[in-house]
Amino acid sequence: MARRRIAVIGVGKIAQDQHLPVIDASDDFELAATVSTRGLSHNGLPVFRTPAELYAAMPELALVSICTPPGIRHQYVREALDAGKDVMMEKPPTTTISELDDLIAHARRLDRVLYQTWHSQWNPAVDRTKAILAQDGVRSVRIDWRESVRKWHPGQDWVWEPGGFGVCDPGINALSIFTKIMPFPVFVESARLTFPANRQTPIDVEIAFKSGQMHQPKLSAGFNWLEESGEIWTIGVETGAGDVIKLEGGGRSLTINDELVLQHGDGEYAAMYDHFAGLLERHESDVDAAPLRLMSDVFLMGARVNGPEFEW
Amino acid sequence: MARRRIAVIGVGKIAQDQHLPVIDASDDFELAATVSTRGLSHNGLPVFRTPAELYAAMPELALVSICTPPGIRHQYVREALDAGKDVMMEKPPTTTISELDDLIAHARRLDRVLYQTWHSQWNPAVDRTKAILAQDGVRSVRIDWRESVRKWHPGQDWVWEPGGFGVCDPGINALSIFTKIMPFPVFVESARLTFPANRQTPIDVEIAFKSGQMHQPKLSAGFNWLEESGEIWTIGVETGAGDVIKLEGGGRSLTINDELVLQHGDGEYAAMYDHFAGLLERHESDVDAAPLRLMSDVFLMGARVNGPEFEW
Repeated sequence: MARRRIAVIGVGKIAQDQHLPVIDASDDFELAATVSTRGLSHNGLPVFRTPAELYAAMPELALVSICTPPGIRHQYVREALDAGKDVMMEKPPTTTISELDDLIAHARRLDRVLYQTWHSQWNPAVDRTKAILAQDGVRSVRIDWRESVRKWHPGQDWVWEPGGFGVCDPGINALSIFTKIMPFPVFVESARLTFPANRQTPIDVEIAFKSGQMHQPKLSAGFNWLEESGEIWTIGVETGAGDVIKLEGGGRSLTINDELVLQHGDGEYAAMYDHFAGLLERHESDVDAAPLRLMSDVFLMGARVNGPEFEW
Repeated sequence: MARRRIAVIGVGKIAQDQHLPVIDASDDFELAATVSTRGLSHNGLPVFRTPAELYAAMPELALVSICTPPGIRHQYVREALDAGKDVMMEKPPTTTISELDDLIAHARRLDRVLYQTWHSQWNPAVDRTKAILAQDGVRSVRIDWRESVRKWHPGQDWVWEPGGFGVCDPGINALSIFTKIMPFPVFVESARLTFPANRQTPIDVEIAFKSGQMHQPKLSAGFNWLEESGEIWTIGVETGAGDVIKLEGGGRSLTINDELVLQHGDGEYAAMYDHFAGLLERHESDVDAAPLRLMSDVFLMGARVNGPEFEW
């Protein structure tokens, strides 16, 4: 079968590191063009300054992958759907829940395929964990998501602006794994968000979750942006069978009772594009709103603590 | 037709002021029992300490109206749906978006009727405004929702606890009218929340909304809890036709170009129970999540300001 022609909208770091090389190597997709406000082309293919210019110049193009920051995403996805395109979008989906729900409804109204990606969900170690918990149940979960904002966002003041989510921007990756592996729905019971006195997004977040389960598993998470010893992206689970599971490295390594049972490299984006090809084949949408909802609930329910000022 | 037997769960101020008298006067409903942790009966009817006791004692009862504070609502609605009841629930629906979406999905799964009420929506002046805006369009909206927390919640420290919403608790009534009357979807563009330095919920909120509309109407809201001159519950609209509309008194009075065209008393709860009877007749749910979503987006997107301490 001929490969499906797709355009990438927003040629920032994630498009250059992942989307473009994965499309180049794909059996399902073929890059047709890019949209870049800075005019960044790829492999000499056409580049447009706005989505509208792309749609006007290539009306037959049916697919777009939107890799911009979330602030503009609602407008861009709306435009793409209105132009009759099927759409894949980066995480976090939008800056508000109302916008995401509007996109879900709009795609349904227009009968278009909408795929909301959560890259951390696409790891074999995550799938294996999900299968184990579905069978054995859950006694407790502890999420530790710690990294250095100075390493990952050096000097980027926008991460501290309202709507930037702060340490919840990496933290939502943990929530996307958490909501995928849990065999029952989870809700925010309470949270504590520490804001640097001179900044508008949290630098440290501690969350207690609840579930409707009779046996009341103990579920909690801690996100921190001041970890200088290296990344700690770990989800620890005690199963109903008493086994101790550790998902480490953001979902790429699985240890059961101190024995390493699975470790693999980064196949997240290749798996996502495979999944998108399947959705298109079946003309199905896939929008998982659970991670953004949980994160939004943290801000809604959380106690605020004024912490020390943060300077780069 | 025989009146439908219904139980009221949670016999606090809103049940005593509204639900119980409205059911007593209804042609569609008949009170069967109450559930009250304080043992508050009504008209000598049976009273139970927990919903589980009610369901065990009156298994044939098909309807409940849940009037508790929102913290316990998710659990109570889940229990009621699981017990096979159709459910009407007070506002605000739940303390998180995840919980509300879970209830919507659960009711659908069990094929039960779930009705989420927003009392401020049930005013003829609101309906009239909606009809006008649907025809003439919108140039601008300004919402002013100001009242005294000392008058409405004297000494109630829980309104300042995390998850209590603060001034957004009355403010969500304005949002429920706003989302009902607008002829297009609206989203939070930015917000500023002022928290008393010694409290965990906002005392003053200013919101700028955006829409996907080409003509970019100017949309904003201000909520304040320190208004001692009396309640100001006003939504001012300039229509696309240039008319100036004022919805005042929380939706009970409509003025167009300084001419009072509609003013009426409180028929909100009677209209809601009429609507619930219709939903039951048609076996349809009605859950409008838009007001809670918008409020949640305000907390997610908003800039925080530390204001002066608040003491009663």
